Amino acid sequence: MSMSTPSTAPAPSPGVILTGDRPTGPLHLGHYVGSLCNRVKFQHTHRQFIMLADAQALTDNMDDTGKVHRNVMEVALDYLAAGIDPSLSTILIQSQIPELAELTFYYLNLVTVARLERNPTVKQEIALRGFERDIPAGFLTYPASQAADITAFKATLVPVGEDQIPMIEQTNEIVRRFNRVAGREVLVEAKALVPEVGRLPGIDGKAKMSKSLGNTINLGASADEIRAAVKKIYTDPLHLRVADPGHLEGNVAFIYLDAFDPDQAGLAEMKAHYVRGGLADSLVKARLEACLQELIGPIRTRREALAQDRGHVLDLLRAGTAAAREVAARTADEVKAALGLRYF
Amino acid sequence: MSMSTPSTAPAPSPGVILTGDRPTGPLHLGHYVGSLCNRVKFQHTHRQFIMLADAQALTDNMDDTGKVHRNVMEVALDYLAAGIDPSLSTILIQSQIPELAELTFYYLNLVTVARLERNPTVKQEIALRGFERDIPAGFLTYPASQAADITAFKATLVPVGEDQIPMIEQTNEIVRRFNRVAGREVLVEAKALVPEVGRLPGIDGKAKMSKSLGNTINLGASADEIRAAVKKIYTDPLHLRVADPGHLEGNVAFIYLDAFDPDQAGLAEMKAHYVRGGLADSLVKARLEACLQELIGPIRTRREALAQDRGHVLDLLRAGTAAAREVAARTADEVKAALGLRYF
Repeated sequence: MSMSTPSTAPAPSPGVILTGDRPTGPLHLGHYVGSLCNRVKFQHTHRQFIMLADAQALTDNMDDTGKVHRNVMEVALDYLAAGIDPSLSTILIQSQIPELAELTFYYLNLVTVARLERNPTVKQEIALRGFERDIPAGFLTYPASQAADITAFKATLVPVGEDQIPMIEQTNEIVRRFNRVAGREVLVEAKALVPEVGRLPGIDGKAKMSKSLGNTINLGASADEIRAAVKKIYTDPLHLRVADPGHLEGNVAFIYLDAFDPDQAGLAEMKAHYVRGGLADSLVKARLEACLQELIGPIRTRREALAQDRGHVLDLLRAGTAAAREVAARTADEVKAALGLRYF
Repeated sequence: MSMSTPSTAPAPSPGVILTGDRPTGPLHLGHYVGSLCNRVKFQHTHRQFIMLADAQALTDNMDDTGKVHRNVMEVALDYLAAGIDPSLSTILIQSQIPELAELTFYYLNLVTVARLERNPTVKQEIALRGFERDIPAGFLTYPASQAADITAFKATLVPVGEDQIPMIEQTNEIVRRFNRVAGREVLVEAKALVPEVGRLPGIDGKAKMSKSLGNTINLGASADEIRAAVKKIYTDPLHLRVADPGHLEGNVAFIYLDAFDPDQAGLAEMKAHYVRGGLADSLVKARLEACLQELIGPIRTRREALAQDRGHVLDLLRAGTAAAREVAARTADEVKAALGLRYF
């Protein structure tokens, strides 16, 4: 049977995405803006793997392995509640795919110690965690592990912050080196996908929303927790009386409204009023609280419902991990065959 | 049915041995004296795993991966020809057991970079290979990989040269650290088993018999190769005329006779004659050649017969590897469970 084909060629495949989180705590609004929203969009247009990086999280949590275990379920609940659809995205648990460790093992032969030590992201994280000379080796070799994760799924796009771009470059160096050893294109290079939306500050005005700073609003926050957080939110320290002109720069209430208020025209009017003077912080906060209650309410409700049937969530994780493992095992096979490690 | 038990308690289990070779070339008399002979003995009294460390061999052979692949079969032939019995010893191919890479991955969190850099064996090998700052990361992290190999099989005894003792200490440090994290004795410590027989020198008198120095006699050597090697063998440079008194120290012909001559009484007489003077080197060499032909002849014959049916050898390797993998997978499961990485 012959059919006339449409004149336009089929669109090229938009690519494979690898993304994920270290399960060390519940996800918050920072994750929502910075990555979850994009994942919910991309799952309709891209093949998307979302990794619960539990093995990676152990690197600096060997003193509290239980935390990592518990948070695999918590983060999975956050994913599903926020709209990640396991029939569109493949959610996987890193530690359940031994092939990722295998690839890491071989990639360690393709990168020198000096090169790892020069990696700016590694350098920065070492400083941040105060490791200095007592870095666990697994921390130094993290770029090889990340290269394993990315290449195992032949990911071509990796959503990362600007500061993580050197990690993707490191992966691509390993890819090129491996392909040179193999004498053919076994692995594919990946591109960093830097989100347009900047990082969401913490409710205290600090640059980063982070569990350890206690300045987050979690995706599972109760109505009371949202209310309390908005009450504490950092606004304009110079805006002492209602009549005073207010400032928008660094004003977290307005930064959040920019991110979450669906009525941006109404928000623009409110901003103008605030800058002129005569608008109380309490009114700005009331608007923000309404937005956040509306955003988080349905997520929390879905989350609570899902949490009632953790067995079902585990089934989803099991299925996603099995599907992902098939892909990773195929890559590990190709990699090992290219290294002459196929005998039977 | 009740039976009276003998009064002596059953002997305690003599332990589990892990041993093996990097398959980068055929085995030679140095391997025979230093390890193969012991393995043939130990396989009757111990549970013995013999690992073809192909993954490890890649660390410094990424430029010639075919060499490693080919030598897995060659070394397996050497093993079988030398008397390793696959029904008594478990021969395994390292790369075919992904759990070894998994364990390596987790152990990297239990050792610092500074500690790896202080490892004397690593230091020495880095100097030997001229790597300096450009060491492949896989080379620095080798002790974690070795710890994975040893602990995967719960080995309690590891035959190594004196210079490798720090590697076993490093493994035991990882074992203790892991057990502390786990809060119980998941892994077992191993002891170095240093062979009584010293290292066999090369035929040129150099301290070590080594393929790269071209001073070996391989286990698969032909009668002509043996003859040629013995002809070139280093004896006593001061023993110029037959009548001259000869020296035994550093005299490789006599060192080999010490190791291989079944008639040690006859050998003692010959030594006395040599030291007195009046015994030609050619007679010493004739005696040595006869010994070596008698030793290697049957090994070569068995090797040639085995090489006729490589499919059978592969079947043996497949079965050994599968049996070993079961043990390693059980350990990896225990390790991951202890780290909270069991979900399903």
